Amino acid sequence: MTEDAPAPRRRGRPSRQAAAEGPDARTRILQAARTEFAERGYDKTSIRQVAKAAGVDAALVHHYFGTKDEVFAAAVELSFEPALVIPAVLGGPPEGLGERLARYFLSVWENPATRAPLLAVLRSALTHEAAAKVLRGFVLRRLLERIAADLDVPDATFRAELAASHMIGIAMLRYVIRAEPLASADPEDIVAMVAPTLQRYLTES
Amino acid sequence: MTEDAPAPRRRGRPSRQAAAEGPDARTRILQAARTEFAERGYDKTSIRQVAKAAGVDAALVHHYFGTKDEVFAAAVELSFEPALVIPAVLGGPPEGLGERLARYFLSVWENPATRAPLLAVLRSALTHEAAAKVLRGFVLRRLLERIAADLDVPDATFRAELAASHMIGIAMLRYVIRAEPLASADPEDIVAMVAPTLQRYLTES
Repeated sequence: MTEDAPAPRRRGRPSRQAAAEGPDARTRILQAARTEFAERGYDKTSIRQVAKAAGVDAALVHHYFGTKDEVFAAAVELSFEPALVIPAVLGGPPEGLGERLARYFLSVWENPATRAPLLAVLRSALTHEAAAKVLRGFVLRRLLERIAADLDVPDATFRAELAASHMIGIAMLRYVIRAEPLASADPEDIVAMVAPTLQRYLTES
Repeated sequence: MTEDAPAPRRRGRPSRQAAAEGPDARTRILQAARTEFAERGYDKTSIRQVAKAAGVDAALVHHYFGTKDEVFAAAVELSFEPALVIPAVLGGPPEGLGERLARYFLSVWENPATRAPLLAVLRSALTHEAAAKVLRGFVLRRLLERIAADLDVPDATFRAELAASHMIGIAMLRYVIRAEPLASADPEDIVAMVAPTLQRYLTES
């Protein structure tokens, strides 16, 4: 622990810190969690490290978020924040929807700052069942079902998952495995090929 | 080391073992490597463990394969053996090619025995650059370029990579993240949606 704190009470919020912390502490914890998980991976990240990076007592992390898995889930949500824009991307005219989605997805992955946390989430899900479970809950509940709710096709969630699969697979081959020529391709060439696929999945019965 | 062997010579094949080992040893080493990497992951697997699992001296592993990365590359090739059938899958009538490929890919992933090594390869590539490099070399050189050589479209390797991306992404969401309803979907429902996509990528200019 980095601060000279009194022994935390067993119940409720540590009172002396509460007055000094406020909402900024919660945000700092969340950002620290995202960075720590991204850099060290799910396995090697502890609540203590997150607390230290955020400059708070570990008890405060538990107070705001709960268990390690709950901290991780919150960090995943923050990492996926760009994805929460997707319903807006989908909300425009139906024609060109596939193109907008493909282009948006690539723009998030093309930016190293937004790419790194997403890669870390994928990496964690691939190596730890607990992380896969968090991603499953988040991916399904928050993102894909919201997208599916706006679609006017049967089996909307299934189709949204197929669309997501395609884009996640492109991320794997382009940014992780870095297979050429996909890794060096102009994003617009990828959009041109993939947009009709997403258009069909998301709008054509 | 599991055997009571003389100190290995510094050059050439350990002679006393050579007569007793023959091709079976090489195959045993390869299979042991695939299993060990699948179970422990790239990082935690050593040549010594592979040798022990194969019942041979570590020097024999080095003799046949070289460095750890070279052993890993050989294990990757063995894991992808089902994929080497793909050119034959593609070699039939062009109509229905997308459907044959989608169905074949899913059949490999549906079988836990062939799925596990492939997941281990993906997992390793996602967590270790050295493993990603091996996969990049193997995926490109052995598999995708062979597929692309049989296609009659421009940018064949790029298109083959997009097709591969889609199927790898489905594997991630169906078998790793296990997002529903994709995880429980009838493979034929997946084939029905995805086959036209692969057909377009691989055959339509």
